[in-house]
Amino acid sequence: MSSGEHALRVAFQGERGAFSEEAAVKLLGEKIQLVPRPTFEALFGAVDEDVADYSLAPIENSLVGSVHRSYDLLLESTLRIAAEVIIPITHHLIGPPGASFEGIEVVESHPVALAQCERFFNDHPWIKRMASEDTAGSVREVVRREDPRRAAIAGKRAAEIYGGSILRENLEDDSENYTRFLLLAPSPSLSENANKLSLVVQLAHRPGSLYRALEPFARRDINLLKIESRPVKGRPWQYRFYLDLCASTSDPEVAAALAELQDRAVEVRLLGCYVAALAVAKDAERNP
Amino acid sequence: MSSGEHALRVAFQGERGAFSEEAAVKLLGEKIQLVPRPTFEALFGAVDEDVADYSLAPIENSLVGSVHRSYDLLLESTLRIAAEVIIPITHHLIGPPGASFEGIEVVESHPVALAQCERFFNDHPWIKRMASEDTAGSVREVVRREDPRRAAIAGKRAAEIYGGSILRENLEDDSENYTRFLLLAPSPSLSENANKLSLVVQLAHRPGSLYRALEPFARRDINLLKIESRPVKGRPWQYRFYLDLCASTSDPEVAAALAELQDRAVEVRLLGCYVAALAVAKDAERNP
Repeated sequence: MSSGEHALRVAFQGERGAFSEEAAVKLLGEKIQLVPRPTFEALFGAVDEDVADYSLAPIENSLVGSVHRSYDLLLESTLRIAAEVIIPITHHLIGPPGASFEGIEVVESHPVALAQCERFFNDHPWIKRMASEDTAGSVREVVRREDPRRAAIAGKRAAEIYGGSILRENLEDDSENYTRFLLLAPSPSLSENANKLSLVVQLAHRPGSLYRALEPFARRDINLLKIESRPVKGRPWQYRFYLDLCASTSDPEVAAALAELQDRAVEVRLLGCYVAALAVAKDAERNP
Repeated sequence: MSSGEHALRVAFQGERGAFSEEAAVKLLGEKIQLVPRPTFEALFGAVDEDVADYSLAPIENSLVGSVHRSYDLLLESTLRIAAEVIIPITHHLIGPPGASFEGIEVVESHPVALAQCERFFNDHPWIKRMASEDTAGSVREVVRREDPRRAAIAGKRAAEIYGGSILRENLEDDSENYTRFLLLAPSPSLSENANKLSLVVQLAHRPGSLYRALEPFARRDINLLKIESRPVKGRPWQYRFYLDLCASTSDPEVAAALAELQDRAVEVRLLGCYVAALAVAKDAERNP
């Protein structure tokens, strides 16, 4: 990724301080220009509208699962995957400056964040939870209102950006909480270290077609990291399959497997070949 | 399904008049006792709490995809799939009695329903849309308020139950809109006509394991109807696979394939063997 005259402009969904922003900075450093976009549609349109050079889209959370909206928009878009990044999701209790934990009566955040801090709310039954649009926006509101009874749940970066005060750290029930993001670029790039290949395949609607589609990879010991099925619109109970493979298109064996897949599929579309993010999970059993 | 002294009690998620209620009545007839439950957790707990004999859970929509909450709760539950049913999702514009279409200024409904009627809102730009908790509840509110400027979007059954007036029919952009529901029972039942088998499998985290898991079925020409992957909690980037197969456990070939799968998997759990719902889709290409 070369930077031009201006800083790289990276679009993300949400408000300043969102987890997506943390992910962008982890992947590309602090020197980028962050472009917040209100919706997923606006995020996927940012490069076409020339308000950003790249878009960073959340694709999967280790507890909640795949982000369907991103999968569907990826198919409609001409953007290609240039890189991926994984960040741990840690939820902190953030109040306005000067607030103390003892004074907190109401905690607001996105419903998914609230649901991931069940134990905290069970241990502090006098604290009411309140659903809001997003995690970082809740911190902004809590700081703006200056009410010492109100706090938000969000990541550390939101506290830094809006000047909130962290009252309690790591409220999340499950520490193995990670979100994976894809960096999307207008044209395909192939790093020589690329080791992960994402594609989407549509198969004939007949017995054994998925099995036959996986065979060219299995025979060559090419590891399938993930399979995600999404409905084909207008054809109820038919699916497209998104495959993540441990593979590089520059490997002749992979190219041969892809050629065989083409012969067995109605349509194959490569979404990108890129460097797999470092597995940050604590689990030692993984087999890359 | 035998009925005891009382009418069969069937729990569904949502309010009276919801699409789930339509599905329950389509599957089991009008003589059942309908038990509305506010959340998915309450729905899956209804049989254990003895407020219902069965629970009916939405599992998949042909446009939006799988209902992850149902997949995850199915795994935690001891309930088994006894039957399935598919209903078309049709969205009607429903006002209070006496309202006319010309007077409508605001339309409320669940965000997914509003999003599925994009064309209607584009054609009538003076009508404001308003998000609400659910489709049927919006009709109840619109009828209660008696404001001739307000209408809701919901199914026909909601109009009947709350006495709303249907002002426009079939607002949905995409007519191929169906939702599939599972009837969940406390103990497995095997109809002699059962032709669909659902199971969940956890595989070793190594190359080729999914391919090898599908092989016993593919070799016997047993059709895989659907595969859904869900994250394994606490083990980031590992997945469980939910398989729907065109098969009956009473078929010795299927039993042999299941035995082979057991040998290749960490865990296999049968979720139910039941009669596949009639494919209501217009698409003639399907291959049962």
